[in-house]
Amino acid sequence: MTSTISPEVAKLIEDKNLAFVATLMKDDSPQITPVWIDLVDGIILVNTAQGRVKQRNVSRDPRVAISIVDRTNPYNMVTIQGHVIEQTIDGADSHIDKMAKKYLGVEKYPFAAPGEKRILLKIEPTKIFHMAPRS
Amino acid sequence: MTSTISPEVAKLIEDKNLAFVATLMKDDSPQITPVWIDLVDGIILVNTAQGRVKQRNVSRDPRVAISIVDRTNPYNMVTIQGHVIEQTIDGADSHIDKMAKKYLGVEKYPFAAPGEKRILLKIEPTKIFHMAPRS
Repeated sequence: MTSTISPEVAKLIEDKNLAFVATLMKDDSPQITPVWIDLVDGIILVNTAQGRVKQRNVSRDPRVAISIVDRTNPYNMVTIQGHVIEQTIDGADSHIDKMAKKYLGVEKYPFAAPGEKRILLKIEPTKIFHMAPRS
Repeated sequence: MTSTISPEVAKLIEDKNLAFVATLMKDDSPQITPVWIDLVDGIILVNTAQGRVKQRNVSRDPRVAISIVDRTNPYNMVTIQGHVIEQTIDGADSHIDKMAKKYLGVEKYPFAAPGEKRILLKIEPTKIFHMAPRS
């Protein structure tokens, strides 16, 4: 268990794997959603829209858990505990295009809803557990 | 939002998709792990080993959240909230072989650790949100 992102974990985040993020509802029950994910300078980025359940949840309680499984090898996986240290709209629109490029191979995010405001959740990892592939 | 499992959601569970299950740690922070998953008579089954983090977590607080994404179509996904209504060792050993057959195509679960005791978590869904595939 560590709080530093190893090259192997960075690769899991940087590859085209979906991440699953758990947050806490108002009654402290767990909530979970699949997300696109990014890594910049050791901070994990999740791009969501203002007002979505998980954005409201982390505004109340910043604790999150993240699980990523290598889409090409289910025994290569990482579980991360951390917390949202910042929410910002700065760069969120260009960042969702970066994610669309990564996950969809297109230049521009195609799913924006009318009036939707993107927001970046910056997550600092506090505990990282990487299960390496079975040989 | 419903608590009844539709045929489309049943198919997501019954296909070879990994599920991601969130539980609550002792300090109420979220925890998340990928699991094999099964559906019997409207109850979701997760087969784990006694003493694992998620088994200890649901013994303290039975609330869970589950997310499943269709491995062949990321826009076909379901999020489920529910709670563990029973834990049982009855049938857990034969059930993990059933899961090995489903996910690995082998007759017998090959990863048993010495002394490991399997346990079935029976989860009753209370809220189900299915996002159907984009056309």
